[in-house]
Amino acid sequence: MDWLLKLAFDQLVERGSLIVRAPSGRTLTFGNGQGAPVAIRFADRRAALALVLDPDLKLGELYMDGRLVVEQGGIYEFLELVHDQPAGLKKPLLGRLLDRARLALRWLSHSNGAARSRKNVAHHYDLDGRLYDLFLDSDRQYSCAYYESPEATLEEAQSAKRRHIAAKLVVRPGDRVLDIGCGWGGLGLYLAGTAGAGEVLGVTLSEEQFATAQRRAREAGLADAVRFELRDYRAVEGRFDRIVSVGMFEHVGLHNQRTFFDKCKSLLTEDGVMLLHTIGLSDGPWFTNPWIDKYIFPGGHLPALSELLPWIEKSGLVLTDVEILRLHYASTLRDWRERFMARRDEAVKLYDERFCRMWEFYLAGCEAAFRWRNVVVFQLQLARRQDAAPLTRNYIEQAEDALRRAEADAGRAVRPEGRRLASV
Amino acid sequence: MDWLLKLAFDQLVERGSLIVRAPSGRTLTFGNGQGAPVAIRFADRRAALALVLDPDLKLGELYMDGRLVVEQGGIYEFLELVHDQPAGLKKPLLGRLLDRARLALRWLSHSNGAARSRKNVAHHYDLDGRLYDLFLDSDRQYSCAYYESPEATLEEAQSAKRRHIAAKLVVRPGDRVLDIGCGWGGLGLYLAGTAGAGEVLGVTLSEEQFATAQRRAREAGLADAVRFELRDYRAVEGRFDRIVSVGMFEHVGLHNQRTFFDKCKSLLTEDGVMLLHTIGLSDGPWFTNPWIDKYIFPGGHLPALSELLPWIEKSGLVLTDVEILRLHYASTLRDWRERFMARRDEAVKLYDERFCRMWEFYLAGCEAAFRWRNVVVFQLQLARRQDAAPLTRNYIEQAEDALRRAEADAGRAVRPEGRRLASV
Repeated sequence: MDWLLKLAFDQLVERGSLIVRAPSGRTLTFGNGQGAPVAIRFADRRAALALVLDPDLKLGELYMDGRLVVEQGGIYEFLELVHDQPAGLKKPLLGRLLDRARLALRWLSHSNGAARSRKNVAHHYDLDGRLYDLFLDSDRQYSCAYYESPEATLEEAQSAKRRHIAAKLVVRPGDRVLDIGCGWGGLGLYLAGTAGAGEVLGVTLSEEQFATAQRRAREAGLADAVRFELRDYRAVEGRFDRIVSVGMFEHVGLHNQRTFFDKCKSLLTEDGVMLLHTIGLSDGPWFTNPWIDKYIFPGGHLPALSELLPWIEKSGLVLTDVEILRLHYASTLRDWRERFMARRDEAVKLYDERFCRMWEFYLAGCEAAFRWRNVVVFQLQLARRQDAAPLTRNYIEQAEDALRRAEADAGRAVRPEGRRLASV
Repeated sequence: MDWLLKLAFDQLVERGSLIVRAPSGRTLTFGNGQGAPVAIRFADRRAALALVLDPDLKLGELYMDGRLVVEQGGIYEFLELVHDQPAGLKKPLLGRLLDRARLALRWLSHSNGAARSRKNVAHHYDLDGRLYDLFLDSDRQYSCAYYESPEATLEEAQSAKRRHIAAKLVVRPGDRVLDIGCGWGGLGLYLAGTAGAGEVLGVTLSEEQFATAQRRAREAGLADAVRFELRDYRAVEGRFDRIVSVGMFEHVGLHNQRTFFDKCKSLLTEDGVMLLHTIGLSDGPWFTNPWIDKYIFPGGHLPALSELLPWIEKSGLVLTDVEILRLHYASTLRDWRERFMARRDEAVKLYDERFCRMWEFYLAGCEAAFRWRNVVVFQLQLARRQDAAPLTRNYIEQAEDALRRAEADAGRAVRPEGRRLASV
């Protein structure tokens, strides 16, 4: 067994310092000995074998089950050490064959009909709301924040994200806005309460999110302007001046991308503007990590731009701007993980130890993927007419400044009774 | 014959006022009679037939040959009237079949090897430099300008374009820059003379451009910093901190896109930044208009983003920003055409009447395509590392401000002897 671990980690770790306590009891060391050492231990021989044969699925499972224990450093430090290597992460032939098989299987079996989508969404977003409060910001923004400076706090960066999106959505007073995948309602309330939208419809498939969003709209006195519905985006009717979708496209899935863009086009007014914010891959189409698919986001799919563009072009929508948010999600996940770890005890009480290890691995693994690998966030601005959005991009900063002032004014005006934008 | 003209234009023209003097001598009117009327006359029956059967190729040819005469309004006004219709431009079945045949033929016959590329480039860019002086700005920027406001002059908009590109190229003092398709040298001289690049290599396949660019570098006292070479981009060697390519990718052609991106990746340093500025199509891959291919840009090809992205993703380059310049080229072409028409007499002396009608149709047709159809300009920022370019886009305006100050300082410093940036 030791020879197999040696073979695997020798190839992988050139830089840094990795200590592996093998099931045989022997201690193997890898790397050039520089940097803070990370030590892992396997509980049994089968754990070590499983990791070497199928790390994409098994690393997370072994960590959840306590069969791979990080004795020195943490799971993120282990992932960082493995990813931050001069040669990058190269898969052996067996791993590449397994990838091909999974890719084919995913292609054949993937389907996100209405019922399956509801089930997939419930799996993640209907978890206890108190879990999300342990690590998200006070507005429960559960998507990539926008760090205007590296020093920004999570709260500031999520606030900047709302402004950035509202600015690029070019919201005009009175606009009718559709928010596809509205989460717990934070963005919709912001667009109506601060950015001046006249009417917002937010749709979600999560009953937990729907209930919370509705309550927040009532509490913020915005129930007339902001309506939430428990509805599949494919079932939305009507026409909207603005369509926004943040962190939902990842659940649309492999075979429904065309449906999504065609539907959005039919929902958008002639001079409408749409902003799509989605995680994606920078180096071409691929399938979701099998551990993430099994434990965290069943049915999810991260698109490459080359995968989206044919459907956008065919839909008749015009792409008017593409921002590629790089490393912002790595910072977001770092902040989420720190907050989660600081309140891990409470999470253990809500669920159990295994769940918490799963959650920790989820946050750490995603951060590593954004920081060291091929995962980025795309903000696509779309329209039906070339001139629906301004022709130079400086309107974005101008709108952000105006929103910053509106936020400050709102803060001053309602301080006595509390924040206008009700936190969760 | 009249019935055919009636059939064709009745379908096309719903709005506006078109008067057609048919070869039979009869006058046909189309549209709702609103707006300034446009009147055209056919010289003979075969001209009318040719136009109806194959407008994409024949409209330009008939106009060049004086067999289609615009008697009221101008050729641009005719194109505008035809394009700005509520139903858009719909092709009859015959036209769609012809398109398919041309698409297949282009795919099979298109090839831009080194020798063919030189010939294609000579066809257009080796025309008499005095022709270009009739309509371009004083820096001979022969690509889409950047109109910071609708009132900007051509001179101002081309100056803003240079700033915008230099800003997005994130030029650092001393950087080694490669300019692929350097034109008459204006951008290269600006990057070294104003933006602080340490060393610029500009390559072109046009002997006229090469000679002019070299002379300008000498006259500006920048011959040490800016080198121009008559060289195919595929033959460039070395490593560059920054790569810029403006209005050259349109000549790379259908089958060389992968070569282009792979080559650029190999030429870019690990922390390098590249800016690619190219015309493209907003609604998916298609072939170049046959008239443009025959008379103006042989071997050219306008890419859709969906066509470029697979090659970018495969090359290992990371896309870090995409700006879609909409309608800026329509404004540029409007300004070029106005300037050209104002000095048309001089152009007739350089070439002849037919050449001038060809040039006029080229400028008018392209303007119509940018204003009313599916043609836009993509500015793609690329790198090898996600963090090679800043993580938020506000550095662009900041760098533009700094460049504006540098331009003003340079203007003050050298006013006695003339402009530092030697005009052509």
